[in-house]
Amino acid sequence: MRILLINPNTSVAMTERMVASAHANLAPDVELVPITAEEGVPYIASRAEAQVAGTTTLELIARHQQGMDAVVIAAFGDPGLIPARELFDLPITAMAEAAMFTACMLGPRFSIITFSHALTAWYEDAVALSGLQPRCASVRVPRATFRSVHDVQDELEGDLVALACRTVEEDKADVVLLAGAPLTGLAARIADRVPVPLVDPLDAAIGQATLLARLRTRPASAGRFARPGPKPAVGLTPALAAWIEHRSEAADRSVPPARQEAS
Amino acid sequence: MRILLINPNTSVAMTERMVASAHANLAPDVELVPITAEEGVPYIASRAEAQVAGTTTLELIARHQQGMDAVVIAAFGDPGLIPARELFDLPITAMAEAAMFTACMLGPRFSIITFSHALTAWYEDAVALSGLQPRCASVRVPRATFRSVHDVQDELEGDLVALACRTVEEDKADVVLLAGAPLTGLAARIADRVPVPLVDPLDAAIGQATLLARLRTRPASAGRFARPGPKPAVGLTPALAAWIEHRSEAADRSVPPARQEAS
Amino acid sequence: MRILLINPNTSVAMTERMVASAHANLAPDVELVPITAEEGVPYIASRAEAQVAGTTTLELIARHQQGMDAVVIAAFGDPGLIPARELFDLPITAMAEAAMFTACMLGPRFSIITFSHALTAWYEDAVALSGLQPRCASVRVPRATFRSVHDVQDELEGDLVALACRTVEEDKADVVLLAGAPLTGLAARIADRVPVPLVDPLDAAIGQATLLARLRTRPASAGRFARPGPKPAVGLTPALAAWIEHRSEAADRSVPPARQEAS
Amino acid sequence: MRILLINPNTSVAMTERMVASAHANLAPDVELVPITAEEGVPYIASRAEAQVAGTTTLELIARHQQGMDAVVIAAFGDPGLIPARELFDLPITAMAEAAMFTACMLGPRFSIITFSHALTAWYEDAVALSGLQPRCASVRVPRATFRSVHDVQDELEGDLVALACRTVEEDKADVVLLAGAPLTGLAARIADRVPVPLVDPLDAAIGQATLLARLRTRPASAGRFARPGPKPAVGLTPALAAWIEHRSEAADRSVPPARQEAS
Amino acid sequence: MRILLINPNTSVAMTERMVASAHANLAPDVELVPITAEEGVPYIASRAEAQVAGTTTLELIARHQQGMDAVVIAAFGDPGLIPARELFDLPITAMAEAAMFTACMLGPRFSIITFSHALTAWYEDAVALSGLQPRCASVRVPRATFRSVHDVQDELEGDLVALACRTVEEDKADVVLLAGAPLTGLAARIADRVPVPLVDPLDAAIGQATLLARLRTRPASAGRFARPGPKPAVGLTPALAAWIEHRSEAADRSVPPARQEAS
Amino acid sequence: MRILLINPNTSVAMTERMVASAHANLAPDVELVPITAEEGVPYIASRAEAQVAGTTTLELIARHQQGMDAVVIAAFGDPGLIPARELFDLPITAMAEAAMFTACMLGPRFSIITFSHALTAWYEDAVALSGLQPRCASVRVPRATFRSVHDVQDELEGDLVALACRTVEEDKADVVLLAGAPLTGLAARIADRVPVPLVDPLDAAIGQATLLARLRTRPASAGRFARPGPKPAVGLTPALAAWIEHRSEAADRSVPPARQEAS
Repeated sequence: MRILLINPNTSVAMTERMVASAHANLAPDVELVPITAEEGVPYIASRAEAQVAGTTTLELIARHQQGMDAVVIAAFGDPGLIPARELFDLPITAMAEAAMFTACMLGPRFSIITFSHALTAWYEDAVALSGLQPRCASVRVPRATFRSVHDVQDELEGDLVALACRTVEEDKADVVLLAGAPLTGLAARIADRVPVPLVDPLDAAIGQATLLARLRTRPASAGRFARPGPKPAVGLTPALAAWIEHRSEAADRSVPPARQEAS
Repeated sequence: MRILLINPNTSVAMTERMVASAHANLAPDVELVPITAEEGVPYIASRAEAQVAGTTTLELIARHQQGMDAVVIAAFGDPGLIPARELFDLPITAMAEAAMFTACMLGPRFSIITFSHALTAWYEDAVALSGLQPRCASVRVPRATFRSVHDVQDELEGDLVALACRTVEEDKADVVLLAGAPLTGLAARIADRVPVPLVDPLDAAIGQATLLARLRTRPASAGRFARPGPKPAVGLTPALAAWIEHRSEAADRSVPPARQEAS
Repeated sequence: MRILLINPNTSVAMTERMVASAHANLAPDVELVPITAEEGVPYIASRAEAQVAGTTTLELIARHQQGMDAVVIAAFGDPGLIPARELFDLPITAMAEAAMFTACMLGPRFSIITFSHALTAWYEDAVALSGLQPRCASVRVPRATFRSVHDVQDELEGDLVALACRTVEEDKADVVLLAGAPLTGLAARIADRVPVPLVDPLDAAIGQATLLARLRTRPASAGRFARPGPKPAVGLTPALAAWIEHRSEAADRSVPPARQEAS
Repeated sequence: MRILLINPNTSVAMTERMVASAHANLAPDVELVPITAEEGVPYIASRAEAQVAGTTTLELIARHQQGMDAVVIAAFGDPGLIPARELFDLPITAMAEAAMFTACMLGPRFSIITFSHALTAWYEDAVALSGLQPRCASVRVPRATFRSVHDVQDELEGDLVALACRTVEEDKADVVLLAGAPLTGLAARIADRVPVPLVDPLDAAIGQATLLARLRTRPASAGRFARPGPKPAVGLTPALAAWIEHRSEAADRSVPPARQEAS
Repeated sequence: MRILLINPNTSVAMTERMVASAHANLAPDVELVPITAEEGVPYIASRAEAQVAGTTTLELIARHQQGMDAVVIAAFGDPGLIPARELFDLPITAMAEAAMFTACMLGPRFSIITFSHALTAWYEDAVALSGLQPRCASVRVPRATFRSVHDVQDELEGDLVALACRTVEEDKADVVLLAGAPLTGLAARIADRVPVPLVDPLDAAIGQATLLARLRTRPASAGRFARPGPKPAVGLTPALAAWIEHRSEAADRSVPPARQEAS
Repeated sequence: MRILLINPNTSVAMTERMVASAHANLAPDVELVPITAEEGVPYIASRAEAQVAGTTTLELIARHQQGMDAVVIAAFGDPGLIPARELFDLPITAMAEAAMFTACMLGPRFSIITFSHALTAWYEDAVALSGLQPRCASVRVPRATFRSVHDVQDELEGDLVALACRTVEEDKADVVLLAGAPLTGLAARIADRVPVPLVDPLDAAIGQATLLARLRTRPASAGRFARPGPKPAVGLTPALAAWIEHRSEAADRSVPPARQEAS
């Protein structure tokens, strides 16, 4: 099974770290195909940047979907997730949603902790989008600042452990999500210092994508995720324009390539 | 007072019709400055298209905000509204949100009626985003089809009147919104055939933008709509990149030009 | 355009202050017609007083609606708002509802701050009535007490600024409403000391009434705000009894005077 | 135990019918003290009328509370209930709220059926006020019309039975409330023709008032129902003004007369 | 009227204390018939124990329902309440639900205080089940520990009073529930030290059962609480198996014995 | 990886069918260990039966958890799920919850269809417990009846296909869940006749259990799912009593056997 892992940030180093971290918990038959955005910002940290990144995500899926069984949008905040599900026919997951649904099977209420205040409004939007607000105990950030996004999980390790423990004590969290691609892999390292389960959102997103691909459900031809009809479009990348105009190859098949291969 | 009216669809004819329609209900001191998107689709009808249009909206505001007192995003569905509010410092309204808040002052529950099934999932998202789901009685579409988006309000006039009446009877709507830019101006024409108030979303959006500009509130420097710090960005249009990187002129002022002028 | 401004408190001084404050942000074509209650309490501060004031509000609208384009109920807490909308045919706004809807276009979550603990339960009811509870971050009051309702905005200015800043920091408010007629006009004075937009509820209520009047929507003849049929009534003021019994002049017209004039 | 039964409608015949009906299910130690409003309308059927009746209710409680153990507001829609609880120190119940809470112990979801469309918006408000909207399956009215409010339960008996059965079948109601004072006593007569429990709101309201009086809880001196401090008031009835100004006898005692007697 | 009081804990001493306490507020025509569980744990303090106790509760009702007018499940947390209502035909109440509905008639928001952290997750579930989460201000426990469940209300009296006062101050509770069978009777003793009404859940549950029995509503033969059809069952106690298989005497009657007697 | 598959119904034939069906979508490294209840009913179809089955589920997990990596409760309705998660230390999933969370990644709103009206109240409870009510479009049952639970998916195949299509059309479902263990395996057979994705709840539950086991999160030692302290218990099966009393082997380890093996 091949899973397209899209990093909508422009940092290749972050993509590499995510792939390395993901391998520890992969099912034996899963192969990750990582792609890094070439346009946008090194690290998405606002809703304006997420708006731009959502469009980039659609472009990358259009370009690379051929031969894939599922897609993972590897940014917590899930840029482009709903439009992508509407537009494309393969299963698509993203880090925030997958982490939240997974967390709900580990405890009644979860908290999301991350490393920068700039991120919290965007993450709150992701909670609202999922419909899980009643199960979200808090979205929190440590007071300490950091120098480099790339090293933030080392720089703030102690602060994040302390904050995770505080969410359990003060916010009554039963599970804690370590949110933001730069925290990928931290959960395993600090699990024994926090008294509740920690969810690594990348592991959750890849796990859920694997699960959806195994279900081999058909793409919707009715309802809110039915693929829109062909539409002329100006100013988009060739692959996205071709897909939106129903000119690309996959569009001629009732079932997309990845899924036929899977059956 | 100058209000930037952004049509994120690429249809200039639609922009012209909206401007003509808006003039009937404008405050005497308001001047509209209309802009039409040059990239995207002629008429946004899916969430994928709205994703793309949201980015276009940010680009157009970045390019044209200088000298404006407020912005109206002239598409029901409000592409880019939240990112735009976070990113820019002037008051910004959009058709769906403005129409819904306005409707809530005219009746306890509103229905949204439009002309194509393709639009309803996107409009439902706009309802959810506003937090007004408990006040939304229904989102409905007539069974009849139409030939041209440009003439749809004439082609379906009778069907839309009948549907509006049915939402009052069956869904217990107390106000009806005629949603979608192509229905702009229809409300005034059919008001006497529907037993509850009809809201024209463009009038509502311009009215609310006028109101916000008159309040002359300061832009947020804290909270969820505080402008993000400067960030290097790749692949964006020059005006948007300059604004995101805090390089454009307006960025050097604590209060944006339009508002200084207003005080 | 003529807007009837009803102060359901018996304090004429407060009416005068509100009118003075409102003039700064009025549209050029709007004329305010202020009326002060002659029965009730000098300043409504409980739900029992609001119950009484709601009836007074209906009486005042019945008496003064002739020739008006819209009505503003100038008390935060909105006494009589829903009954008035059901009973009368002109657009009616009130301070709490208008301030909340306006605030929602300036930030995702708002806080309400006021000057006396006695008011908070009443204000919470207004939040619930609007359906905006999920967007209300808090309703708060400074610890300090005051001597005179008339001077409270001066006496507590520093405390209210500090409290507004605390709601941003502690409650994550993105907009702050300065609630209660005695705080009218304060927003403009302290805006530069609070890092998020401040909403003046009177400006919002007059602005929304102006907007609704401009829309020239028809009164509902069906649904929850359709005018009730004639009913014999005992013990009411003559104007209210006449209107409830459909004996007053306006009742003979399908469209009330103010709206005919506007068209 | 003495329970003050306030009919905020001006119909004495209805009061008599309610008292007669209530006696069938009264606890052996309960005495009802019925009072009929002298001002207002014969039968409240709009929110404007309920606004007026709420003030009347406060006046009647102020005048007759001496020596009572609890108060029942005998109108479905509960005019003045929240202000009355804030203002007075005895337990107070009302027909809509009491019927809904009682119904929730008889089935997961309830429907409210009544006899006139004019009433439904008011009854929906009562559902919202209780916070029980998620448990309300529907608020419905038969299509048939009636001649006399006084005889409506006989005229529409068959229609109401059929409607109750339809709410079970179509709306999945598990309990049905027969709402509106004119339907008092109907539940017992038609119970064997409807397959789920029927709640008589007057029985529920008296039963809950009896229960609250037996609990002998203290009146709140803090929180949302703490009695407001003394306030000068103009234009109210003497008893209500005296109570609001803390001039009446009961105001000098920390615990009101009825409750001292009970302990 | 005979009310079956089921203590699903195995502590006979607790049953005796509850019966003694209940007598102070009983209607003159009510007789309590107490039963103590013989299997399970001395004091239920987890959801796993509540799961087991729920089955025990069904067994005890099956065995002892004959001749009863109503049932009270005398444990806060309400083990088996919903299944019991579905399975049996008499009115059934339980301490958490009854206390919450009762509290809602005494104040807008209630807090639940109890004596052990182990209990709070279970109590939160009871709040969620009732649908009253928006009216629950908090579920809290004092920091102090105790030696004996039997004496806990004496050991922690001061702490519980202080905590009740804190919920009023900090959580804005308007009513406080003293939750957990071991706190039965405490409310009366400390009422004068807490500024809002205190609800004793056992009094509430018996009062509500009394009220429901007086209403003499018919058991549901349709909807979510209609008795399931006969079913073969293995491994249950004889009385429960007989009832589930519709073999026991009461099953042959359309109305159960207690209710016939009552009519 | 070993997953304990608990069928809380007493039908061995159903267990066998579930195991056969599950093998089609299993990850290559997963081994199922099926167990069938020996006490209870052949097919759970009421909340009373689910109450009894929940206790049986706890007993079966206590008896068979040794050496397992995760548990699946193989009944839609999830008997004992929350108590089991609180009591035991391995990941536990169940059919309703897993199917709903999975469905939410395939479409905005899901419908649940099943084969008997007796089941719907229980399934609605499962929806409420998950917190996903806003995303549930409907819970529906075909009108047709069936002879044998064992053959129901064949008998009603056409009716279930038609009903699934109707939920898409009438209820606006974007995903359909085929609920109830007897429908296991049907989704794959009818997928091409329904225009939206169909979720097989058993596949979802096993997939989610596999995912959770791969995450290797630690069991909670704080919060709502922390294992309760030791407690004396009377009348339980030996394995459950031993686990509740912390006497069984696994209780002596801070991390349960299955998870040590996994690390």
